[in-house]
Amino acid sequence: MILTSLPTELQLADWACGMSRSVLRQMIATVSRPGIISFAGGLPDPDLFPRAEFADAIARVLATDKFALQYRPPLPELKEQIVQLMAQRGVACTAEQIFLTTGAQQGLDVLARLLLNPGGQVLLEEAVYPGVQQVVAPMQPRILPVPTDLRSGMDVDAVEAHLWRGARPAFIYAISDAHNPLGVSISVQKRQQLVALARQYGVPIVEDDPYGFLHYEQASVPPMRALDEEWVFYLGSFSKIIAPALRLGWVVAPPALLPKLTVVKEAGDLESSALIQRAVSAYLAADHLPAHLRRLRQEYGRRRDVMLAAIARYFPAGSRWTVPMGGMFIWVELPAYMDTAVLLQTAVDQEQVAYIPGYAFAVPGHTVTNCLRLNFSHSTPDMIEEGIARLGRVFA
Amino acid sequence: MILTSLPTELQLADWACGMSRSVLRQMIATVSRPGIISFAGGLPDPDLFPRAEFADAIARVLATDKFALQYRPPLPELKEQIVQLMAQRGVACTAEQIFLTTGAQQGLDVLARLLLNPGGQVLLEEAVYPGVQQVVAPMQPRILPVPTDLRSGMDVDAVEAHLWRGARPAFIYAISDAHNPLGVSISVQKRQQLVALARQYGVPIVEDDPYGFLHYEQASVPPMRALDEEWVFYLGSFSKIIAPALRLGWVVAPPALLPKLTVVKEAGDLESSALIQRAVSAYLAADHLPAHLRRLRQEYGRRRDVMLAAIARYFPAGSRWTVPMGGMFIWVELPAYMDTAVLLQTAVDQEQVAYIPGYAFAVPGHTVTNCLRLNFSHSTPDMIEEGIARLGRVFA
Repeated sequence: MILTSLPTELQLADWACGMSRSVLRQMIATVSRPGIISFAGGLPDPDLFPRAEFADAIARVLATDKFALQYRPPLPELKEQIVQLMAQRGVACTAEQIFLTTGAQQGLDVLARLLLNPGGQVLLEEAVYPGVQQVVAPMQPRILPVPTDLRSGMDVDAVEAHLWRGARPAFIYAISDAHNPLGVSISVQKRQQLVALARQYGVPIVEDDPYGFLHYEQASVPPMRALDEEWVFYLGSFSKIIAPALRLGWVVAPPALLPKLTVVKEAGDLESSALIQRAVSAYLAADHLPAHLRRLRQEYGRRRDVMLAAIARYFPAGSRWTVPMGGMFIWVELPAYMDTAVLLQTAVDQEQVAYIPGYAFAVPGHTVTNCLRLNFSHSTPDMIEEGIARLGRVFA
Repeated sequence: MILTSLPTELQLADWACGMSRSVLRQMIATVSRPGIISFAGGLPDPDLFPRAEFADAIARVLATDKFALQYRPPLPELKEQIVQLMAQRGVACTAEQIFLTTGAQQGLDVLARLLLNPGGQVLLEEAVYPGVQQVVAPMQPRILPVPTDLRSGMDVDAVEAHLWRGARPAFIYAISDAHNPLGVSISVQKRQQLVALARQYGVPIVEDDPYGFLHYEQASVPPMRALDEEWVFYLGSFSKIIAPALRLGWVVAPPALLPKLTVVKEAGDLESSALIQRAVSAYLAADHLPAHLRRLRQEYGRRRDVMLAAIARYFPAGSRWTVPMGGMFIWVELPAYMDTAVLLQTAVDQEQVAYIPGYAFAVPGHTVTNCLRLNFSHSTPDMIEEGIARLGRVFA
């Protein structure tokens, strides 16, 4: 017999009684029908994965290292390679500050568990990556919301106002570059101000940087971790620059924090795959990444440009949108009277095109009815042109 | 400048202020010097990993499936293959009841997050796998301890006494077969009694079964999940039957629980590697596992026998030990006046041999001074014979 409901007597933890599936993931599943042009997911293009090079790397590891399939401590060589990668982001750090994680999501999770008490406070933007909301949910925190300026990023004055009034969030969550979902990067001045606030009030910043290596302009700005190594905990990821199925990321944090992060991570999954760590290290050692990154930047940069031009051409008068310096997303504000949740149904049913309505990213108590997130990394330029034209008809 | 301490103002969550590194993992690291015969770790023997067959499987997947490196939903074929595996354990289930995890540790973690409130209760044996203690620590629970009989497993009368007195733990943690660290399997009668208590009092059992496929006797007893599909949540793992670095396991749970487990797991690491899921599925589809399991059972069974015979020969009069039906561990009680924590130093320094003293497994408030856990899966029979003879000298 298959149960179709839980035994009525089963007592879940309080926070779990009211939980629902991530709107975002549910929505992405719904709109993933064949034939749909989808700008919904946050997916890299699988045709751009370095599949052959990675296959070589993992085959070499399996052929030569009998411990590659064993329980193993974090790989020192990989930590050194990540130090080199961080230098490309303008961050000086050492291997003692590198903590390996099962994707950046796990880095976020272990930091939240380490920092956040039940019923504590967390500072989040009003529209923000839903994964951070999922991470803190079991602690039933009070969310301190701040708005985001679509040109310069997080409203630092609003952050200061919270702190000045006595709020002490367990951490400030920030995506410095190519914000998900907003596409905006935090201005240099605001980065400095945020770091100053973190120091002044003793509140750490969790800086999530999955898109930092995917920048499409000549110059990229260093993350906040370059400004402070004590109050900024940096989250990095191989998901967007090599491939998501590696499930490998890292935290840059003060060395004194690493033993504590280790205990929390062990509770979560013991350790990150020794095999994947060695395969990624072999891939990096073969020096494949620089050319691969150049290719990703060129190709994704082109797709961004195509999407921006198409939006300007097809979207209704009164629309505004971000011009991302990198990453995968453009955020669009339609005229205020439009409701992107309602329009999605039309888009999918009549025009076979999908996006994520803004409300999927809103923190509790905030509404975002006239906005949408568009992903430009997963579709070819032709599909982008066609898909945005279709959306133009839906929004007309 | 490298920080050697945390900024004094950094406020960790309350539970994290008093936390320390897992005694067990710390100890395993300490005694992992070259030249040491170590019975300390819970490691499979890397010479028995199916390295060539797995390398073939992952190469095939990478060569043929461009989505193998992408974000992907859990692989339906793998769930069906796990259903077949569970049938070999005497468990009837369906793919709708299979939830894939990043190792069984993650299964334990997501279940604990779903079930346990801050300050709630958990029922654990007095000597138990430390990973479960790490999982519940952030919730600062009250531990309800029960003793374990070294021949028949968990003291079910003690479980009933807790429940009868009104305790309502979020779950009962049980290792039905080849207990870590005790080596004991729960008797058939006690399995039935435990399941009856779970139903009667509405308290779920989390049944951890990493060693269930490694049994060294003709007959193996089905896990408690075979007796109840509503109140027993089963944890399975590929770590001990294929390899730990896969970081792949599963939960068997009521289908209504799966969407909730999904939300909790997404917060932890989004999803388990699509690449590893596909590679394991390809390995299983090539039908390598049955012969591999026969080999593991034969080889590990032989090592168990060698260790049991050597203990009988070399250990002091008055010692008692478990005779495990499977798994990787033998638990030894030395005469009551002996202190295995003190003796470990002598063992490592003078005889170059290591084990884990029993106190590393004790729940808070319990002391286990005269016991030790011995692993027999990681050493060859010759090393086992030699290492146990050395320990005999230390304990003489």
